[in-house]
Amino acid sequence: MTLRLIATGGTFDKHYDELNGKLDFAESHLPQVIARSRMTIPVALEVLPLLDSLDMQDADRQRVLASCQAAREKSIVIIHGTDTMRETATVLGSAQLDQTIVLTGAMIPYEIANSDALFNLGFACGVAQTLPPGVYVAMNGKVFTWDNVTKNRAAGVFQAL
Amino acid sequence: MTLRLIATGGTFDKHYDELNGKLDFAESHLPQVIARSRMTIPVALEVLPLLDSLDMQDADRQRVLASCQAAREKSIVIIHGTDTMRETATVLGSAQLDQTIVLTGAMIPYEIANSDALFNLGFACGVAQTLPPGVYVAMNGKVFTWDNVTKNRAAGVFQAL
Amino acid sequence: MTLRLIATGGTFDKHYDELNGKLDFAESHLPQVIARSRMTIPVALEVLPLLDSLDMQDADRQRVLASCQAAREKSIVIIHGTDTMRETATVLGSAQLDQTIVLTGAMIPYEIANSDALFNLGFACGVAQTLPPGVYVAMNGKVFTWDNVTKNRAAGVFQAL
Amino acid sequence: MTLRLIATGGTFDKHYDELNGKLDFAESHLPQVIARSRMTIPVALEVLPLLDSLDMQDADRQRVLASCQAAREKSIVIIHGTDTMRETATVLGSAQLDQTIVLTGAMIPYEIANSDALFNLGFACGVAQTLPPGVYVAMNGKVFTWDNVTKNRAAGVFQAL
Repeated sequence: MTLRLIATGGTFDKHYDELNGKLDFAESHLPQVIARSRMTIPVALEVLPLLDSLDMQDADRQRVLASCQAAREKSIVIIHGTDTMRETATVLGSAQLDQTIVLTGAMIPYEIANSDALFNLGFACGVAQTLPPGVYVAMNGKVFTWDNVTKNRAAGVFQAL
Repeated sequence: MTLRLIATGGTFDKHYDELNGKLDFAESHLPQVIARSRMTIPVALEVLPLLDSLDMQDADRQRVLASCQAAREKSIVIIHGTDTMRETATVLGSAQLDQTIVLTGAMIPYEIANSDALFNLGFACGVAQTLPPGVYVAMNGKVFTWDNVTKNRAAGVFQAL
Repeated sequence: MTLRLIATGGTFDKHYDELNGKLDFAESHLPQVIARSRMTIPVALEVLPLLDSLDMQDADRQRVLASCQAAREKSIVIIHGTDTMRETATVLGSAQLDQTIVLTGAMIPYEIANSDALFNLGFACGVAQTLPPGVYVAMNGKVFTWDNVTKNRAAGVFQAL
Repeated sequence: MTLRLIATGGTFDKHYDELNGKLDFAESHLPQVIARSRMTIPVALEVLPLLDSLDMQDADRQRVLASCQAAREKSIVIIHGTDTMRETATVLGSAQLDQTIVLTGAMIPYEIANSDALFNLGFACGVAQTLPPGVYVAMNGKVFTWDNVTKNRAAGVFQAL
């Protein structure tokens, strides 16, 4: 069994640029995170263009879908921004693929103190191996199906509709 | 659904004592870790005496078993030292409880750089909610059944027998 | 001998706000940083309004000057944004106070991985106790006098004129 | 002006060995720490055998002395274990060299949460450039002369005699 990880950016992967003082994207942190996790299952990492999910267009979501369709792995974890995670989940869910696809992300970037990134990735890598085929959002220690989830932006948490 | 976390010590929870220069146990890091995870499922944390798992005696494993038997939750995660995780898993597995019990731990303490603790806890909290009743070890991004797991000490990883 | 620390904000003290995804100011990190430093010299911490130094107005710099004038300590460290550190240093230097005043800051916020904040604060707390009265900028492991320093923004380092 | 850093081990540089669960020495963290400090003064790093200072013998202290004597730099910072920092300072102080030599270390290893290592190194790098020739211990935000310092082990702090 191999696990596919698809990095698409989002808060999880943001990097502080010390020259302009902004949080932006550079190299993905995922190679370092995967090493740190000490996973011994084979992991195939695919790094798509890293985007703030508020900047994602339809074409970007179609690219994520194409990656899932092209993947031979039965378990896929997608690292994604939280703001439009639900929209991408809807695109993937409507495609009715025969894989277990789990979207996760972070409220605080991996490289910032007190980040939830590593916990969330671990959570997603676990349920991606144990849930039946389908598309899920895994955040806040909970699993949501793609058609029954929303981000409560005021509280900064995901919840069922 | 509520998730029960049982802290028993192990590398995960070790603390550096700056007065004697040793890694030992003080307060459990679990309350801080749970807050950091931003879990919104109800979590019941039970902190048992924190031990290096090499120091665990039969009575200590029986205490872990008693905690599981007394728990009303269907999903339980046990944070445990890696060196005798298998032995405790055997005690719990033999008891044939009707709960999903997942043991996890860490190769590097939570408070030390590059720790796998947060990833492992997330992984365990995920599979504890999705696996059928039984006793499992969740380490290295893999799930093992209690009767088919061993720690390869030379490599520092868990593997099937 | 007492050391006065004056927090004015800047990159050093920025905090990631997980609800809006921006780096902003909340409580100063200085109390936590001072505890972490294990300083046994008496430290008087004064937290002024925390500002991005690009947002500092004349009145803000006058407030920093007033704090120095009111201080009875001979050694003062000011934590300040890097972009207009030189401007504030000029206001303080022109006042010709009889104290050793050292401005420092950070290129990466204290709470972000690989931050130089703790090193810079240690450096500044050292030279503030050993330099003769005057106004200095302490960054990049160097001491600059207030009238001979500039930030090279392209390189992200301080240098003499 | 060049700054010489001499790494001799001590708590500052200890590394957690995940295979045996002990704090020991591997590669020095100093190259990474120096990069993080963003120092622009030329730094010459010399890594001596890394030792717990309780294991230091006379020959080890003589080797540190020899390194100082061979150095052309006027400012030297020695990263050293705290338990026998005073003994090495005495060897160096008795040699009456014409350099500013500052010993520092840490109560918590660089790679463990809440470490004072980076602050202490910054502090030492500052005073090494500003103090007159002599041998000093720089810990707890204070400068001590080599012949008037002791470690209070019960409190974990350095103090004058």
